Amino acid sequence: MMEAAAEIPGYTYGSEGLQRSPVSDDDLELLKQTVLFGEDDERYLRMAGDVLRDQVEDVLDVWYGFVAAHPHLVRYFAGPDGAPIDAYLARVRARFGQWIRDLCERPWDRAWLDYQEEIALRHTPAKKNKTDEADAPDRIPLRYVIAFVYPITATVREFLARKGHSEQEVDAMHQAWFKAVTLSVALWSRPYADDGW
Amino acid sequence: MMEAAAEIPGYTYGSEGLQRSPVSDDDLELLKQTVLFGEDDERYLRMAGDVLRDQVEDVLDVWYGFVAAHPHLVRYFAGPDGAPIDAYLARVRARFGQWIRDLCERPWDRAWLDYQEEIALRHTPAKKNKTDEADAPDRIPLRYVIAFVYPITATVREFLARKGHSEQEVDAMHQAWFKAVTLSVALWSRPYADDGW
Repeated sequence: MMEAAAEIPGYTYGSEGLQRSPVSDDDLELLKQTVLFGEDDERYLRMAGDVLRDQVEDVLDVWYGFVAAHPHLVRYFAGPDGAPIDAYLARVRARFGQWIRDLCERPWDRAWLDYQEEIALRHTPAKKNKTDEADAPDRIPLRYVIAFVYPITATVREFLARKGHSEQEVDAMHQAWFKAVTLSVALWSRPYADDGW
Repeated sequence: MMEAAAEIPGYTYGSEGLQRSPVSDDDLELLKQTVLFGEDDERYLRMAGDVLRDQVEDVLDVWYGFVAAHPHLVRYFAGPDGAPIDAYLARVRARFGQWIRDLCERPWDRAWLDYQEEIALRHTPAKKNKTDEADAPDRIPLRYVIAFVYPITATVREFLARKGHSEQEVDAMHQAWFKAVTLSVALWSRPYADDGW
């Protein structure tokens, strides 16, 4: 995984140059409690990672199809002429796929928190477009980052069900995924809200 | 419903004195598209309203039990001495119950949008505590508003299943509820983010 990840353009997980996340260990622990994320969820999220690992491109096809079908979403990956920037979409796509793997497989430690902060900043004027030198709008509105909790959660269930797990296991993996996505979005909202976070 | 609602302290739905929501009809339509909220969801959300109507106090018992069990949440309803303010909690509870009914039963029109803005502001220094003259912290951090998508969604399913509907109907009601809650939180995030919204 690490070798593959190192080849993803703009993927800087664990890099020395990253800003440190201002989110404390206590903040993270309390967020986990708020989304009811416990030890069982950790286990089922790992299971989800195993299940999704060789389906990541199919999941991305669904998500990218959804974005491409909605002009109000694809515009954040388009240039001043309104045309989607293929190279930008492709680079973001590779990192989005790696995000699935990281969310399921990585420990949620300081390195993970630092990279959530980096992802957050890349949705805002502080860092959007810069990694990819793209001439697209300078932010993704917070409302869409939050609204994405629904499609990113709902569309994954069918993929979790494709490897012969029991209904109970699929449900448990799906709930762990829903909690993990909600917690991620809560972390990504930080730079939008400053002292309101 | 309207007569009962009029007796809820601080419930000002449809009042002339409310600030108007800056969210446009187009903004709302695009948010609905982003959470995949369609005509079937409208119908199933109405059905959920029928199912939940006489269970609202039971739902609130679960949600209040969750908040009460977590000091990092109940503190936003506590005074400077750290003790929960019972009168404040009771007043908020009555409006929280009415929010369930409104979300399921009201048309999502300008009056509804204006009241979502009012609810949003009541989570921030602009309006928190003022309606209830409570001496509690002056905001609910955005991260917890977002994180609540999970418990507010997950805990409702068992109540949706209690009125003899088919598994398919319960699932459809639950998905409509999940979408509606996510969209509500996206609206409530507006005052936290200003031009990042």
